Amino acid sequence: MVTHVTEEIPRSVWYGWGDPSRAKRLGAGALSYLRTTLRLQDLEPTRTPVDFSSIEITPSRLEDAALEELRAITGAPHLSTESAERILHSGGKSTPDLMRIRAGDVVRVPDAVIFPGSAQEVREILALCVRRRIAVVTFGGGTSVVGGVDPLRGGFGAVITLDMRRMDKLVHLDPVSRTATLEAGMRGPAIESALQGHGFTLGHFPQSHQEATLGGYLATRSAGQASTGYGRPEILVKSLHLETPSGPYLVGSSAPGSAAGPKLLDVVVGSEGTFGVITSATLKISPLPPYKSYGAWSFASFEAGAQALRLLEQEGVRGDMPHVCRLSDTDETAATFKLGGWKTGALSKYLGVRGHKRPALALFVWEGKKPETTARKRRSARIIRRAGGVALGPMPATAWEHGRFSGPYLRDELLSRGVYVETLETAATWSDLSATYGAVRSAIMDGLEAKGGPGYIQTHISHVYPDGASLYFTFLGGLEDDGPGQNARIKKSASEAIVAAGATITHHHAVGSEHAPYLGAEVGELGLKVLAGIKATLDPHGIMNPGKLIPETTIHVQES
Amino acid sequence: MVTHVTEEIPRSVWYGWGDPSRAKRLGAGALSYLRTTLRLQDLEPTRTPVDFSSIEITPSRLEDAALEELRAITGAPHLSTESAERILHSGGKSTPDLMRIRAGDVVRVPDAVIFPGSAQEVREILALCVRRRIAVVTFGGGTSVVGGVDPLRGGFGAVITLDMRRMDKLVHLDPVSRTATLEAGMRGPAIESALQGHGFTLGHFPQSHQEATLGGYLATRSAGQASTGYGRPEILVKSLHLETPSGPYLVGSSAPGSAAGPKLLDVVVGSEGTFGVITSATLKISPLPPYKSYGAWSFASFEAGAQALRLLEQEGVRGDMPHVCRLSDTDETAATFKLGGWKTGALSKYLGVRGHKRPALALFVWEGKKPETTARKRRSARIIRRAGGVALGPMPATAWEHGRFSGPYLRDELLSRGVYVETLETAATWSDLSATYGAVRSAIMDGLEAKGGPGYIQTHISHVYPDGASLYFTFLGGLEDDGPGQNARIKKSASEAIVAAGATITHHHAVGSEHAPYLGAEVGELGLKVLAGIKATLDPHGIMNPGKLIPETTIHVQES
Repeated sequence: MVTHVTEEIPRSVWYGWGDPSRAKRLGAGALSYLRTTLRLQDLEPTRTPVDFSSIEITPSRLEDAALEELRAITGAPHLSTESAERILHSGGKSTPDLMRIRAGDVVRVPDAVIFPGSAQEVREILALCVRRRIAVVTFGGGTSVVGGVDPLRGGFGAVITLDMRRMDKLVHLDPVSRTATLEAGMRGPAIESALQGHGFTLGHFPQSHQEATLGGYLATRSAGQASTGYGRPEILVKSLHLETPSGPYLVGSSAPGSAAGPKLLDVVVGSEGTFGVITSATLKISPLPPYKSYGAWSFASFEAGAQALRLLEQEGVRGDMPHVCRLSDTDETAATFKLGGWKTGALSKYLGVRGHKRPALALFVWEGKKPETTARKRRSARIIRRAGGVALGPMPATAWEHGRFSGPYLRDELLSRGVYVETLETAATWSDLSATYGAVRSAIMDGLEAKGGPGYIQTHISHVYPDGASLYFTFLGGLEDDGPGQNARIKKSASEAIVAAGATITHHHAVGSEHAPYLGAEVGELGLKVLAGIKATLDPHGIMNPGKLIPETTIHVQES
Repeated sequence: MVTHVTEEIPRSVWYGWGDPSRAKRLGAGALSYLRTTLRLQDLEPTRTPVDFSSIEITPSRLEDAALEELRAITGAPHLSTESAERILHSGGKSTPDLMRIRAGDVVRVPDAVIFPGSAQEVREILALCVRRRIAVVTFGGGTSVVGGVDPLRGGFGAVITLDMRRMDKLVHLDPVSRTATLEAGMRGPAIESALQGHGFTLGHFPQSHQEATLGGYLATRSAGQASTGYGRPEILVKSLHLETPSGPYLVGSSAPGSAAGPKLLDVVVGSEGTFGVITSATLKISPLPPYKSYGAWSFASFEAGAQALRLLEQEGVRGDMPHVCRLSDTDETAATFKLGGWKTGALSKYLGVRGHKRPALALFVWEGKKPETTARKRRSARIIRRAGGVALGPMPATAWEHGRFSGPYLRDELLSRGVYVETLETAATWSDLSATYGAVRSAIMDGLEAKGGPGYIQTHISHVYPDGASLYFTFLGGLEDDGPGQNARIKKSASEAIVAAGATITHHHAVGSEHAPYLGAEVGELGLKVLAGIKATLDPHGIMNPGKLIPETTIHVQES
């Protein structure tokens, strides 16, 4: 068993991502690459976060009576109105969230943070908040990059953040049916540790894996790096327990298949805390793979690589598809080679001879029992080779896996050095992929360069499906004085291009507050009304996570 | 290409299933088996349907002005108020539907039948029906076995049936992304014929395949015989066009994966015509398999066979699972052997020596390219053998496939011979499967034998999942004078047992009117309210398929 052991880390640092002691710093090569690419002279890390102790926030708006009632539910140690705790829950990990908190600009802050210990406590908290007209934001790992956990009050006088960390237990595991019931506050490593003790894995490894929670995985309809193999949580989940302002709601069933009407589970998965609080869920689990096989190939272009992934998925032997399947475009490949400590001279020569002047790098991981995994890789390699792939050995894939949770740390350092960096993702059919790639790339570049400075963008495919693939864009530019404004401008440009291309506004980051203005273009006016209708049933007063997912204007709130 | 060519048949006969000229009659052996098993002396086919021409129905309740407006939408030839057409649309193919129509007891009949030619026409029809307060039942192939297309009026003065047969075209096929857009009125063979011309298949083969339509497949969240391999339509569908009383609704998108909020497509799939009319859908399609491999094995017991299926699904090489996977219990196996023209003496001896005194028969079909399909079967056979399976060669599986659409014809002959016959299905986790099997079987037997006569029941697993399997029960008894009453009593007994076992009320037959009383037990009170809330958005006046899926008491209808 070499695999899937993931490390527990402390709760995220207040100004950025994860545990900064784990962050790999940018080397001289990277800094020089950035200086050239972005034409930035000064990359000194001078734009550091303010002193935590200097951050001032407004006092809690909650009346003593309300606080007393909340304390009575959870016990006093599990309710906090302290500034530090409220600041730690003042947002997620979106770029504008970080820009604001780094500047000490903590305007949006919960009036209290409560840590429930059971579904029953959640139920009582929601009942109290309905009665007292208090907005509720559910907070798992707090890693939302789209404003999903920002403590917006909507039309209410106060907002509390409900932190799920105490609900972190494995409730039940059925090794025969291969299902597990887990509390929603479990973070990725805790889930893996609990399941791996029984020989199983959930197989869900988003970049936020070490911090994010099961509830968040489901509430955001997320995907992980190995979802091409294990399946997205939306297809792994069988049922979940949702506490709503209208009462407890067990949605889904134990049945492995059913024709009993609409699948309401799919209404709750992706509802981003706007209908209620996911307190536990039952999911299908997989046996822990005893073996992993890694491979990497170079292609003459991003398009040639995408074509190879499509053939692998469509023409490969049933079941042969790798668990992880990624393809970088030529810019991302150049950066990977340049910054990854590769012997780029020899590599360029080798690939140049094979016609890959500007190579596109594809990485794969196959998981399973050794003989069959080896056979799957061997057969896949044949397809990849026929599609023009030049084998590079396992190293690029093992290197990627080694650093796979570390990407977001770089953002903190880049912001300190005056570099703007952001990511976003979409997905499109194979037929539309190239046009979507081009249109979104151009739009981001236009946004980046609107103020004259050069921009940089790199892209990869991170998930492959029979009918299409995802596109993940990472882009950089000089950080303007108004960082949040800069970010909003570029995201708007990109989002409009995604909508115009008919692609999805988000493949796995979810909607939150950032994408809410674009949801209507994707689900239609009637779709928004359907969502608002469901919310009216489950959260008739509109206290749950206001300002997220569903545009405010769509929601009809019941008075009194 | 030996596979998947399915035969177009005429529209179903009025009193029963399909085209009676294709029905295989019960042989002397079967009749003798029935006489013994059910202790019935008289099995003469004397309880034949009434004369079609003798059936009297009430005149259409639609005013001339309404008929005139409807005619203006579709053109006069596509609206019918003739008795014959109205009788042909007076129900589906549930056992009580057939009992009633065979007796000439056609009380529930649509006031007109309309055949729209486009989504636009459907839209205009719905607008008119909202304005004039007319209920609308959408009718695809009319094969519902749960009362799904019965022309109930709800609280309205009239009801029309909207027959989708004219909307039968392939709209678009994308061979690169492997998707196809099809009109909802296409029947199974037409779908396969259109796709197979391009080298693709939908792979959806329910027993009703030859008659049922794409719209019905989706509206009922159905499963087909090869869904273990190709996937249920609910996972193949990417988007669909729904005409609702609130306007046209394009639900789903072209994106292969998305985190843009709840998956509202899953609200429409399984909505059984209660939210609107599915006019077209885009689905993932598969390459037509060039090869099929068949296999059958015997097991010492149903439990031993189920264990083998579980190991095959859970321990087999990824992708090796057969496309079709069925296991009969010992009673069904005995009947198959007895009635299938087998040399049962030699077979019994052969299996008896191997300890299979009362064998349970498993059938498999693998589909794909020849070398890999052969390898999948070979590896699977190893698991099956280790689990105690005794190989019986391909013949039982090819024989099953040959007759796979013919089962329902027998019901017509049995009813004529005074034999009650019905089927129902559920699904449960592997852990719960045996208890569910026992409890439902007992309940059905209790229902069958409540009036003293002996009953007969046989069961099979038809679909296998990583976490569980379906159970399909076929049961017979002497036909009582009050056939519908007899059926209601037995179904009630079975349904209550299913609910008590925590299994699903339906694995693939859908809810319709028959299972509506049990939906609340499965989705909960809040679940029913969510459904009613969605209906209030899409069908605020409640004209769409009243009395189906959602219990009437749950629905809030907008007045005026």
